[in-house]
Formats: sequence, C-alpha cells, structure tokens
Amino acid sequence: MDVSIIVIGDELLIGQVTDTNSGWIARHLNPLGWNVKSIKVVADDSEEIFSAINQAFVQTDIILTTGGLGPTKDDITKPTLCRYFGGELVMDKATLRNVEEVVAKRHLTMNPLNEAQALVPTSCRVIQNRVGTAPIMWFEKQNKVLVAMPGVPFETETMMECEVIPQLLKRFCVNDHIEHRTFIVIGYAESALAIKLDEFERELPGYIHLAYLPKPGIIRLRLTGSSTDAEKIKSDMEMLSSKLDAILGNAIVCHEDKPISAILGDKLHERRLSLATAESCTGGNVAHQITSIPGSSQYFTGSVVSYSNDVKQNLLGVPADAIKEHGAVSEPVVRQMACGVSSLLKTDCAIATSGIAGPGGGTPEKPVGTVWMAAKIGDRIHCECKHFPGVRDRVIDRTTTEVQIMLLKMLME
Amino acid sequence: MDVSIIVIGDELLIGQVTDTNSGWIARHLNPLGWNVKSIKVVADDSEEIFSAINQAFVQTDIILTTGGLGPTKDDITKPTLCRYFGGELVMDKATLRNVEEVVAKRHLTMNPLNEAQALVPTSCRVIQNRVGTAPIMWFEKQNKVLVAMPGVPFETETMMECEVIPQLLKRFCVNDHIEHRTFIVIGYAESALAIKLDEFERELPGYIHLAYLPKPGIIRLRLTGSSTDAEKIKSDMEMLSSKLDAILGNAIVCHEDKPISAILGDKLHERRLSLATAESCTGGNVAHQITSIPGSSQYFTGSVVSYSNDVKQNLLGVPADAIKEHGAVSEPVVRQMACGVSSLLKTDCAIATSGIAGPGGGTPEKPVGTVWMAAKIGDRIHCECKHFPGVRDRVIDRTTTEVQIMLLKMLME
Repeated sequence: MDVSIIVIGDELLIGQVTDTNSGWIARHLNPLGWNVKSIKVVADDSEEIFSAINQAFVQTDIILTTGGLGPTKDDITKPTLCRYFGGELVMDKATLRNVEEVVAKRHLTMNPLNEAQALVPTSCRVIQNRVGTAPIMWFEKQNKVLVAMPGVPFETETMMECEVIPQLLKRFCVNDHIEHRTFIVIGYAESALAIKLDEFERELPGYIHLAYLPKPGIIRLRLTGSSTDAEKIKSDMEMLSSKLDAILGNAIVCHEDKPISAILGDKLHERRLSLATAESCTGGNVAHQITSIPGSSQYFTGSVVSYSNDVKQNLLGVPADAIKEHGAVSEPVVRQMACGVSSLLKTDCAIATSGIAGPGGGTPEKPVGTVWMAAKIGDRIHCECKHFPGVRDRVIDRTTTEVQIMLLKMLME
Repeated sequence: MDVSIIVIGDELLIGQVTDTNSGWIARHLNPLGWNVKSIKVVADDSEEIFSAINQAFVQTDIILTTGGLGPTKDDITKPTLCRYFGGELVMDKATLRNVEEVVAKRHLTMNPLNEAQALVPTSCRVIQNRVGTAPIMWFEKQNKVLVAMPGVPFETETMMECEVIPQLLKRFCVNDHIEHRTFIVIGYAESALAIKLDEFERELPGYIHLAYLPKPGIIRLRLTGSSTDAEKIKSDMEMLSSKLDAILGNAIVCHEDKPISAILGDKLHERRLSLATAESCTGGNVAHQITSIPGSSQYFTGSVVSYSNDVKQNLLGVPADAIKEHGAVSEPVVRQMACGVSSLLKTDCAIATSGIAGPGGGTPEKPVGTVWMAAKIGDRIHCECKHFPGVRDRVIDRTTTEVQIMLLKMLME
C-alpha cells in the first residue's frame, strides 16, 4: 500500500516550526508494510494544496495530510478540500458538541473561531478529535482515501493511533509481510562498517536489504525483508541476525531501535546498579536523557549540575587547588566530580562531564569543544578527553551520547 | 527568488530519522526574501530523485538537495545527477585531497569507500566540504541552479552558511525587502488571541500579514511585510509593532524569536539574579534548556536532580514526614525543594518540579500528568499544580516550559 503525506503550513516553509508529524506517521506505517512514497510540505495556499493532492492521488492509494486546520487557519484547507472532493461546508452538530467538550475540558469558553471549526465538507466523514478542536476528515474518491488531520503533533499522533490507523487497516487489506531487525553498533565509522560488512551485504537475497543510519557516536543498522511468506521471511531474518552478531560481536550493543539511555538503563537494571550524574558542560542533559526513559527511577538516583565552580567544590568535593592548577576542564576535576556525586548520592555508578561548549570560553590549549568525561562503576573509573567539532548544541549532544557509551562499554567488559 | 528543497533518504520515509535540514535552510533563506515553495522528501531511488528534480526545475529558480550522498549511499544520487545534467563521474583530485584531509583530521585511515566520494560529475562545479567527506556539487541549467549537499545536518548547515548562501547571493540578485517581527505571547489560547487581534488583523495592509505559531504554553506571533521600498516597510512594521504592544501589553514577553529559557536568562541577567533548579519529574531538562543558552553561566549556578526521595530529604531538606503525609508530588514538597536548592547553592531564585510523568505511577487522586511546580525569588514563592495531558515526553516538556514561564511572570510583576 503506497502512502503520500502532505504537510500544510507556511510556518514550515519559513523554518519556524520543524515538521515531526510526517516522521511519526512514517515510523508507524512502516511496520504495517505500508510504503511512504513521498512527503511534501506546502504553503497555506489553495493552489499549492490542490495540486499536491492531485499529484498524490495519481501516485498513491492513501493520502494523509496534517496541518492547515485550526482556529486561525481554517479558511484555506477546508474550502480546498471541498473544491477537490465536491460538497460544501456545513455546520456539523456532532462536531460542534465535540469542540464544546474539548474547550470545556481545557477550562476555556467557546468563541466564534472555535465554533467555525465545526464547519465540515458534506463530502467527508468526520472522525471526532478527542484531544483537540480540529476535526479529522475522511474523504474517498476512485477507491482511494484522503484523511485530513490537524497539525498539532500530540493531536495527530493520538488520533492516528486510536482511530486513523485502525480504520485504514480495516479499509485496505495487505498481504505482504515486512520484517525489520535493528542493530545498534558502536565503535565504527560508517565507511569502516560498510567495508566490514561488504561480503555480508553482497550475499543478501534480493528481497532483504541493509540500511546504515548513522547518528553521532553510533550507527543503527537495519535489515528489512518483505515476502508473502511470513514464516520464510522470519526465519531468514533470524539467520541473518545471527550472522551479523557473529561478525560484529560486542560492537552490537542492542538488537532494538532504542536510544543509548535506554540501552544503558537496561544494563543497569539487569545488574541492579544505581547511577548518578555530575554535569558541568552538559548542564543536566545526561540526566534528562536518562530520565526520559520510563522506569528510570529504578536505577537513577539523581544528579548534581555543578555549573559554577563553587558547586563543584562545596557539593562534589573538588579541591579548589585542582581547579586552580588544572582548570575546571581537566582529568582531576571530572574524576573527583564522578567520585563526589557517587558518594554524595550513594550510588554504584557515576557519570561526570566538564567541557567548553562554546561559543565563548575557549583558549589555545583548550579550544571550544574540548570535553573531559568520566564513567565510574564501584572503584573502577575511566576518564577520557575528546574534542568535538561544531557549535554549542552539538558539543552538548555529543558529550551526552559519548559519556553514556563510555559507561555502557565498561558495563559490557 | 523561489526555492525548492529536495530531501533524499529512505531513512526519512520510514521515520527513523527526522529531517531538520529543510527547516534550517528555510529559516536561513527566509530573511533574504527567498521563498521556499515546497519541501519534498524522496526515497534513495533514481526515478524518484529524477522526477523530483524535474518538477522542481519547472517551478523554481533554485533547487537545494540534501542527503543521498556519503560513503554507503553514493551509488544512486550522483549517477542520477549525471543523467539529469549530463557528463560522467570522474575522480577529482582536489576533492580527493579534501577527503584525505578530513579523514586524517578525524584520526581515521582512508578506505575505498572514502576514495569513491571524490568521484564527481563532470557537469558540476565542486565546493569542497570543509567538515565532512561528501563534496557539495553546484549544477546550472537553463539559468537555474541546483546545489547537492550531504545529509549530515552539521555539514549542511556549516557549508550553507560559509559557502552556498554567499555564492547564491552573488549569483542571483533580489530587490524585494522582507521584514519580520516576532512577538512571544504568554497567557492566551490561540483562538482567544485571534479574537483579541481581530480588528488589528483586519486593518493590516495587503502587503503585511500576521501568522500565529502556537507552541505548548506560548504563542509566537509573526508580522511579515514585503516591499521594494525598504524604508517604508521598516517604518510600517515599527508602527504596527507599537500597536501590538499597546493591545497585548505584558502578555508579550519578548520581541524576538527566542526560546523561553533565553527570555528568562535575559531578565535574570538584567537584574543580576542567580538561579538554581531542583528537579524531580523534569529530570534535569529545565537545567538543560537553561544551559543550552550561551552565557548562561552568568546567572545559572547549578541544579539538584532529586529523582529519589532520599536525595530530596538529604540534599534539599524535604522532611520525610512531608513526603509521607502529602506524597512526593505535593505543594509542601516542591516548596521545600525550591527553598532547599536556593539555600544549598546560594542563589537568589529557584525553580522546582515534582510530578507524575508516566506511564506508571498514577493514582486516582494524582493521575499521570499531575505536576507541582514552584518558582521563587528571594522570599517570594509561588506554587502551582497542573494536569498536563499526554505521554511522558510531553508531560516533561510542558512542565519544563510552564515552570520557566512561572518564574518569568514573577520577574515581570
């Protein structure tokens, strides 16, 4: 089943908002074996929307649109949908009731703009939006389906999950079985990994392919196979997974598409170890990533973000002399930050970071991007200095990933 | 000048990677008055890429592509570009030297895949990639320009900024002046704001328009005007800005498109106040957002992420009885967390959060999404309970924004 996604909104074409809806939709349709052929972002412009729909109808069976609806936007997308599918805008009572309920739940009062959201084309079937005021509209033409959804990610995601995907599954039937296997690999550059896997890749059957999805510090490998024979594709994938395990060994740290913080959390939980972080340049981002994983309270105790030197000294016991002699970005300082936080918060493991994230603060000896990191399990402690290229956000992100990989490696030794 | 962006990569169509390049490019072309007409995401497929380029050439003067290049991907995009623009792939010595330099800088060794990156179409002019191995390729046809760039965001951003934008500006000349004014508004729902601004909007001249860009907790308003008369559009925009200020007053917390953490940071810096955070459910995300702003070390001292109750008691002085009697998610607990962290880290201001982010941990009295927040300046302290809908990430994000808005409001009183 081929799908087109059309994302509507001026704000996306001037870059003030980043579209996350299309990625979310693609990620959730892919396991069903549905193929997103293209994603197109267009302006809040009737002609642009009309021509994008027209083109999508030629190429695919299902068209999903997000955005271009909502109290201050309704005037363009809905009339354009009427133009394409026929019919006219009428006030729909069930929709109005739903809008009133959502508005009441938010402790707000109805106004004329909310009311106008209950105007829907006579040519569509409405799916009531349980978590927002813009109705979801289902159109059919020439045996193809278009579903128009709002642009607010939370609303689109909730309604896709609860209503749109289940209803699409009912409406269309698919025979192809698609299997994915994802492998999180550390310690390789993309090209080095491709060379290591050259023979493996050349021997893959035509209906299975391998994709490289590099992220800073890690590479995700994804095997995808499709066949009408569900059993055969499953056993093929098992066999190839074992083969990859044999080739890459310990470099594969996980067999699911999980963030590093979840992989690290699993290992800590397995071994009943607790963790604390002491963060300077990452400013709490390591703790944030770790606690974004449900259940992290089982192994994560807390963190001290020691942004000022006073906090490093008073709370984490870093000697003032060490800072004076070596600077705050140095091995003795991160080492003591890790020891200090694990003794203060009484944890088995600790992570510490201290670096120059920029744009200011660099020196010839320690330019922007210089970072010292420490990972500690019991009495074992490992410190490392890295130089990360790029701007502030990137230095913070890379450090956050690398220091978690450092601890992960120690846990797997 | 009309621009199309084509984003190439299977990984985007299955949702494993979110495209941030197109947003970045749009955001940086917009102030030049260049109009991104559409963004299209296509698969690593020669036919799809060819037809996307073909269509973009009809509609726009400048086509920018990202992705589909790189050591393991080079086999599709480059030959497709040869097919469209003519010429053949040849080994380019200057490009090879550049690849070698970049590889050496990364302390890696050259391999055949890196070498193949120096194969470029004879029909293009190469712009050497200073921060990666994939060359940037500049093509011209029928007085229109296509620039092919790699998919790694850091590389695309760096090269757009240093080379591609300056070279495009030289190549094309633009006469229209575009002016933007952004206003960050708090305390309004989108529809209520639209009603408040109804008359203002109706009185806008045709060459100026107002856009609503809602984000959780805030609404960004953007006035955009374009004219060939730079002075006139500037004075029009000044006049309209003052008018908006008069209508919305204190609800406008900033006249630039800045994140809440930067607006808060500016106010703290202006008034020479220091800040610490005590975070439970946000797990360090408030500290992370505050420290992602350059210069935040001038007002941000540090944070205690008190994920376990032990840390709340031992470090922040929350009485064990308070937790027993009211629960960790309660007013007495966040109040003491704020007081505890400001006295421990000796700061003027403090922020504290404690909530149930989910998916587990909810009860009938305190369902998932229940959050207590505190903001403190000197002896003034304000506590608030909110119920945020949605999943874990969303509860953490909303809390992070709301608690910063709470402190911001107190600073503006």
